[in-house]
Amino acid sequence: MSLVRVHNFSISLDGFGTGEPQSLEAPFGHAGERLHRWMFATRFWGEGGSSGVDDALAQRHSVGIGAEIMGANKFGPPGWQDDPDWTGWWGPEPPFHTPTYVLTHRPRPPLEMEGGTTFHFLDTTPAEAVETARAAAGDLDVRLGGGASVIRDFVAAGLVDHLHLVLVPIVLGRGSRVWDGLEALEDEFDVEAVSSPSGVTHLTFTRRK
Amino acid sequence: MSLVRVHNFSISLDGFGTGEPQSLEAPFGHAGERLHRWMFATRFWGEGGSSGVDDALAQRHSVGIGAEIMGANKFGPPGWQDDPDWTGWWGPEPPFHTPTYVLTHRPRPPLEMEGGTTFHFLDTTPAEAVETARAAAGDLDVRLGGGASVIRDFVAAGLVDHLHLVLVPIVLGRGSRVWDGLEALEDEFDVEAVSSPSGVTHLTFTRRK
Repeated sequence: MSLVRVHNFSISLDGFGTGEPQSLEAPFGHAGERLHRWMFATRFWGEGGSSGVDDALAQRHSVGIGAEIMGANKFGPPGWQDDPDWTGWWGPEPPFHTPTYVLTHRPRPPLEMEGGTTFHFLDTTPAEAVETARAAAGDLDVRLGGGASVIRDFVAAGLVDHLHLVLVPIVLGRGSRVWDGLEALEDEFDVEAVSSPSGVTHLTFTRRK
Repeated sequence: MSLVRVHNFSISLDGFGTGEPQSLEAPFGHAGERLHRWMFATRFWGEGGSSGVDDALAQRHSVGIGAEIMGANKFGPPGWQDDPDWTGWWGPEPPFHTPTYVLTHRPRPPLEMEGGTTFHFLDTTPAEAVETARAAAGDLDVRLGGGASVIRDFVAAGLVDHLHLVLVPIVLGRGSRVWDGLEALEDEFDVEAVSSPSGVTHLTFTRRK
């Protein structure tokens, strides 16, 4: 069966995947771009970037994925459901290139974008969302895009097979924390930690067979 | 001036320096020995141990230290203040070998142990405790021994120069968290992360001049 994978999900030392408050002007709140600078510096992100361990792990994001699931907070700033013209942060050609399932209690009709991304809006459980995304992905895997609370919920429900977190050496102090409710996660996953010369540490959780 | 240093302070991925509940039978609560296995496997801890990066960093614990400060929760289980015969966890010869200041709201007379450790009990502020310990340490440094809330308080008060945390790949979910209240710690410290083949990641915070 195809896997459910999380890639490149950056967190602060204290476990926050985003700062606060989140808004149109500050999608990651007071975290700004600090959680993602390591990725902006890789070839994965753009020409001239690094091609070391940060890049090798970042590139996995795009390999073998047939669908994405994301939470409402990843698709737009608080209140996007009230704006019928909101089509996500990513402009006319979002970087997903697959069916992409947005979890929201206020679904709307599908939104077909350029480059193969179609946003579908689902008001459903994590398990049902995975079932729907798997059917669309065929033989390929499903990427779980975040944010922190979505990752937490799907991991707690036993739905995630591969979890790649990137520990960034900052302390945010507040925001949305990925660890809450995941006591004893190491019982279900093999955990690998590797620090990069860029300063981040990659944590890779692989579900045990 | 001599430095205030924290060494070998182990935390879970979610930042807990101890589990709960702490007791005479379970000094680290539900964490058990899991936070410290990396250290037990080093030559620092005993003959036949490893002598790689875990050991090199662990050995720093004992070099150039003239006094220790610890919190009441490190000295004994909850309620030790009610037991006049309690002399700490460490038997007749504790591993400190210097004056050791125990912060407690219920001080008692000094306790001279074998091997150079004398416990002094102080009901005072972090800044005053550092001043007292520095005076005793002479030219040597002061070690801050923990627990998590003591480290947090001393770091927040700007009293710590060197902070060595060891990130252990377990998720405890509850206990005493070292990060709370330390937002933007990276503004005051250079941070280095290095993962060890043992699975832990050493985080070293060095105060900027």
